[in-house]
Amino acid sequence: MGESIRFVDLVQSRIDDFLDARLSILASIGTELAPIQAFSRDFLSGGKRFRALFCFWGWQSVHGADDSTGEGSGVNRLPVESTSALAPIVSVASALEVFHAAALVHDDIIDNSDTRRGSPAAHRRFERLHLDAGWVGGPDDFGSAAALLFGDLLLSWSDELFDDGLQELASVTGRRAARAEFNRMRIEVTAGQYLDILEERAWNTQDETEHLARAERVIVYKSAKYSVEAPLVIGASLAGATPAQIEALRSFGLPLGVAYQLRDDLLGVFGDSDVTGKPSGDDLREGKRTVLIALARRALTNGQRRIVDELLGDPDLTPQQVDMLQRTIRESGAVEAIETMIAANVDRAVRAIDVAPLSAQARAQLRELATTVTRRDF
Amino acid sequence: MGESIRFVDLVQSRIDDFLDARLSILASIGTELAPIQAFSRDFLSGGKRFRALFCFWGWQSVHGADDSTGEGSGVNRLPVESTSALAPIVSVASALEVFHAAALVHDDIIDNSDTRRGSPAAHRRFERLHLDAGWVGGPDDFGSAAALLFGDLLLSWSDELFDDGLQELASVTGRRAARAEFNRMRIEVTAGQYLDILEERAWNTQDETEHLARAERVIVYKSAKYSVEAPLVIGASLAGATPAQIEALRSFGLPLGVAYQLRDDLLGVFGDSDVTGKPSGDDLREGKRTVLIALARRALTNGQRRIVDELLGDPDLTPQQVDMLQRTIRESGAVEAIETMIAANVDRAVRAIDVAPLSAQARAQLRELATTVTRRDF
Repeated sequence: MGESIRFVDLVQSRIDDFLDARLSILASIGTELAPIQAFSRDFLSGGKRFRALFCFWGWQSVHGADDSTGEGSGVNRLPVESTSALAPIVSVASALEVFHAAALVHDDIIDNSDTRRGSPAAHRRFERLHLDAGWVGGPDDFGSAAALLFGDLLLSWSDELFDDGLQELASVTGRRAARAEFNRMRIEVTAGQYLDILEERAWNTQDETEHLARAERVIVYKSAKYSVEAPLVIGASLAGATPAQIEALRSFGLPLGVAYQLRDDLLGVFGDSDVTGKPSGDDLREGKRTVLIALARRALTNGQRRIVDELLGDPDLTPQQVDMLQRTIRESGAVEAIETMIAANVDRAVRAIDVAPLSAQARAQLRELATTVTRRDF
Repeated sequence: MGESIRFVDLVQSRIDDFLDARLSILASIGTELAPIQAFSRDFLSGGKRFRALFCFWGWQSVHGADDSTGEGSGVNRLPVESTSALAPIVSVASALEVFHAAALVHDDIIDNSDTRRGSPAAHRRFERLHLDAGWVGGPDDFGSAAALLFGDLLLSWSDELFDDGLQELASVTGRRAARAEFNRMRIEVTAGQYLDILEERAWNTQDETEHLARAERVIVYKSAKYSVEAPLVIGASLAGATPAQIEALRSFGLPLGVAYQLRDDLLGVFGDSDVTGKPSGDDLREGKRTVLIALARRALTNGQRRIVDELLGDPDLTPQQVDMLQRTIRESGAVEAIETMIAANVDRAVRAIDVAPLSAQARAQLRELATTVTRRDF
């Protein structure tokens, strides 16, 4: 994935340059803002960047669509000075990554998570700052408040980068289409997150037969559209995609996004903390009402189901209880069912671009990405 | 203030139309999002809208600057069908109001405030939803989490409206200048809010002699630039302001913004809840380290100062304790000192536009606004 690796580097360097300028504004206001500067650097480096990659390959699938001419089919063929042609897609892909960082910062407050990518979550870092300095009041209150503001700052930076990208694009139609998708994406992911925290709490008042469909809806909005479909469509729109091209990318992106989130749900319950950067069984302590849980509950006896319902969402689960829950879920057959769903969705995604009017090179890369993002160790 | 009243109506109707389209997206996702729809309507109606007004008069001060021609000096002179000429400024002013609503929603989470404009704060409304529905888990956790997401949604809507406004503007230079100020405003207000919550907690580790200057810095970033200077400059930029015009508006906006916040600080301690929409003495319970508090502490005996420091920030202050704190602060002479500062800043603001290259009509309106927003009962 030579082009992609290079693209990820372009994104990182765009983010770094952007930060240089913005952090100097913070520095001019006061030295007390130094922690925000440091945390910004940390939270905006690394990560898998696969939203940026989907955005890039959405763009490439349109730009390279006339492969036969031998032109424009990949960054590798561009001489170094021509990477300026990539400016809009680099800025926009960077905007998606910064948006995602903001969402994670706020998510970790909401879920009261201690860690992110194996390091302390943002609110825990601000909490530590308070503890170390010996300030008055509760360190945890300060941690959440400061991280909330930090997330807001990242949201506004994401918007700024997105707009920069659009300004670098000549096509007014491309600009409009990309912005419309970005706007809709932000509404949908926020709605999806709201439904996610709602299902964790409202399941006890809902019809049992609806649990699965409700969990699937959360996946679609919180993750599938947000993490895969929207980035693809935004990238393709910037490149001036036709309706048929957009349609093909949506038909690929939505099922792949579902498969990706189903894998993530499995990792949330069974994942190794080395892979996930979160403690093992984290989703069980948070009480996430995922498709996995809905399927497991269906297959359990009434007695088992009562125990699962009692334990799920208890932040103080012991390792033994986590173990027991993992075993119960596994023995219900829900894990195999999810694996089957993942495979079926990946298959559906890949078939959707088999004969699509997209560049051959991009289709090959999208197929590869489909495997990568749904892998057990991703 | 005939034009202003009409402008505020244009802003409300722009926001309402915008919401119609966005809320239908939420409705298509699920009926569970109905509370977000209802709260959006509530939180985006009413309010003083004075950020929108400053934005408008920034615009008008440039548009009407060639008053002598008798053209373009006020909306009243425009025939009804020409209000479309106002489209960019209406959308952008609406964006500032939506941004402000988002900031208040997040602020009330941070400050753990129960009320806003005399009604329950957003997080309390979501909490109530949880309580009424009989869901599992803590209602307050759900309230904060849901309100955090609600604020994020409002932030993205603010971007969207701002961008819509820029698209409605022909001038590329105007667009760029307005966007640059908006971007900087978002960084500065977030930094100001961070410093605000920091000062509440870190005052015990700081040099006594710096308290006043630190409180003044918070005012500048959290409020003066954000509430007055930036809206004026954004409006003026849209209208193609010259550097001299921008300079004049900044020289007016910054001291007026300081005066406005000093008045707000007095209201936060002494204000009638009918005027503020918050319980009386709210800032005392929150422990805000305002200029008022810094001045009072300076004038107190060591014994009095210790008592004030002990009580400030106690969320459970009794009415008697609030009373005692109010009396202590009043008797320190700090209130008169603040009144003097307010008058001096308003005076400085008004003098700054005495001979400025701005429309005469706008200058008269700005002078009037200067009095209005620093009034005791505003």
